[in-house]
Amino acid sequence: MEKIQILIQMLILFSAARLFGRLLTKIGIPSVAGELLAGAIVGPQMLHIIEPSTTLETLAEIGVIVLLFNAGLETHIDELLKVGKPAVLTAVLGVIFPFVGGYFVGQLFGYPTAENLFIGTTFVATSVGITIRVLQEFGYAKRTSAKIILAAAILDDILGLLVLAIVKNVALGKTNVLELVLLAIQAVSFVLFLSTIGPRITRKRSTFFSALSCDFLFELSLILMLGLAILAEEIGLAAIVGSFLAGLVLSEIREFTTIEDRYRTIGWFFTPFFFGLLGTHLDFSALKNLNTLVEVLIFTVIAVVGKLIGGYLGSIKKGKQTALEVGVGMIPRGEVGIVVAGLAFSYKVVASDVYLSLIATVLLSTVISPFLIKWIYSLKKG
Amino acid sequence: MEKIQILIQMLILFSAARLFGRLLTKIGIPSVAGELLAGAIVGPQMLHIIEPSTTLETLAEIGVIVLLFNAGLETHIDELLKVGKPAVLTAVLGVIFPFVGGYFVGQLFGYPTAENLFIGTTFVATSVGITIRVLQEFGYAKRTSAKIILAAAILDDILGLLVLAIVKNVALGKTNVLELVLLAIQAVSFVLFLSTIGPRITRKRSTFFSALSCDFLFELSLILMLGLAILAEEIGLAAIVGSFLAGLVLSEIREFTTIEDRYRTIGWFFTPFFFGLLGTHLDFSALKNLNTLVEVLIFTVIAVVGKLIGGYLGSIKKGKQTALEVGVGMIPRGEVGIVVAGLAFSYKVVASDVYLSLIATVLLSTVISPFLIKWIYSLKKG
Repeated sequence: MEKIQILIQMLILFSAARLFGRLLTKIGIPSVAGELLAGAIVGPQMLHIIEPSTTLETLAEIGVIVLLFNAGLETHIDELLKVGKPAVLTAVLGVIFPFVGGYFVGQLFGYPTAENLFIGTTFVATSVGITIRVLQEFGYAKRTSAKIILAAAILDDILGLLVLAIVKNVALGKTNVLELVLLAIQAVSFVLFLSTIGPRITRKRSTFFSALSCDFLFELSLILMLGLAILAEEIGLAAIVGSFLAGLVLSEIREFTTIEDRYRTIGWFFTPFFFGLLGTHLDFSALKNLNTLVEVLIFTVIAVVGKLIGGYLGSIKKGKQTALEVGVGMIPRGEVGIVVAGLAFSYKVVASDVYLSLIATVLLSTVISPFLIKWIYSLKKG
Repeated sequence: MEKIQILIQMLILFSAARLFGRLLTKIGIPSVAGELLAGAIVGPQMLHIIEPSTTLETLAEIGVIVLLFNAGLETHIDELLKVGKPAVLTAVLGVIFPFVGGYFVGQLFGYPTAENLFIGTTFVATSVGITIRVLQEFGYAKRTSAKIILAAAILDDILGLLVLAIVKNVALGKTNVLELVLLAIQAVSFVLFLSTIGPRITRKRSTFFSALSCDFLFELSLILMLGLAILAEEIGLAAIVGSFLAGLVLSEIREFTTIEDRYRTIGWFFTPFFFGLLGTHLDFSALKNLNTLVEVLIFTVIAVVGKLIGGYLGSIKKGKQTALEVGVGMIPRGEVGIVVAGLAFSYKVVASDVYLSLIATVLLSTVISPFLIKWIYSLKKG
């Protein structure tokens, strides 16, 4: 596509996303739901004005990278460590319940085992972007549950990566234990290093960083953010895990608060592309077929309830309200689920009708989650 | 290319551009020269780490759009009108001298007339991005000459568009006067409307805009900036003419100063992609051939001196120093010259060796201009 065409597509996607985002906000609906809807309307499934392209996908990726970077900036490692136990429990249970649920529902439907393994895996990965956006929009980002969700989402990503690797090995009939172990070591050490030693280094060298000019610090932090996002992706984790950790590390530099506004601006520019483009994947026509509709609804209940129970049980020691908040906060699925389903389809492990059901399930839980999150969080004041 | 590959290319281009930009600044060289050099080093001609792609080109385009938008924000229409006369003279003479010079040098070399018309046209278009960046970097953006350069650059773009249209018609042997007149009317009315009625509307409705939230105003202005850039491009003008005018219109809103910082941030992120990517086109190997080298040097002298004299004579009434500043400020050529040469080559009006010389000429004047600009501007204090 020509440069000018891309600029036009950018303009349309951005304008539509923000317009619908603002309109829905007026009637109390989280703006992220409006951005998803806008994407669905201008996307290939309806008006077909927007054609997903590498450029738009890159802008979207930067959007979610910056979103999680900002979440990292607002988080301190001590706060995360404080919620370590419930976060680990939430992540583990939040992987087990949807996976097992997906697997057994597949068995019930009479699908082959390999296919059911992938159905379960599709339901595993939490896409924390929507949760973060809703919490930021309504001022809930400082609650304990937000910290548990963030910590759990990182662990969730590691677990999801391993589950995918195992399932891939099993379904394709080749088991390479060494590779799995290496993958696990890489992922765990990446996260451990950045979340423990990283903040300590920046804290110790805080005066050094504070002596840099704002502009230079901004450039260095941009490079760190993108660099760690890429590294995380290369390891097999999501890019957002890397950028969240980059934010976490940089939040220890006291002077960094002076340039936080710049990242809010960058996020403001890029984030609508992420949710708008995610919306372009919404295909409601798949729901016209009654059988598919029933399957999608059952899948969605499993995916949603599985995460809800996982989060609730994992965090129940922090009180019922917090446990509920964590539960709904873990519900959103996103591009990772779509990617897993796509992988399974490309391996020919999953049939095309099941593939469509899986995509619809991921998108349905994505669409309903902003409403659920807003509702549950508003039960408690402040 | 994959999304992750693009992110890696972005990271490398941005890091290299800012690294070289900062290093050269330390020894008093304008950072834009460093960014060009960085692009040349990581680009296809040398290390070949960076492969120009639609995504990088789009980011670069946004970079220069925001750069000129910011220049527009810092300019008031009254200031432009005050320098109307020298600006018009500068633009007209700055088109005539390089065009005629290029044409006759081509005749001297014995090239056919059609080819010489395109050689002249290639030397016409000023690419004001480099000038603006250097003036901003060294704090010269408030001088009278800066206003003349900006106003002249817009007129220059209109004239360049018309010259290209005429030359294209003549060289390809078909003359469509109606089309030319329509083109002229479109371009002139676009600029006239935005530079006269536009600011009046925003000034009158200033209280209305000031009542909007900063976030909403930011979104609207982003949409206006991209929208006018696209519109300008569709008309046949450069995108930066549209975004400069968008900035000019918005600078009349008093409350807009509160969000100017956001555009500085956006510019900071995107602009290095523009100059870095421009640098990837630098191909020094063309200069190995002695004949080509001589031709390029003669071309460059014509292109540089033509603009210099045009600007100097056009602005001499504002004093010698200002006239000199305008002269050097109009020297930089850029992507427009490359596009014109490329067009001529694709029409088979220009032979491949002359095409390479033209590209080298555009790039050479691009490379030397930051130094010339900094030197001439530093002759006067303050």
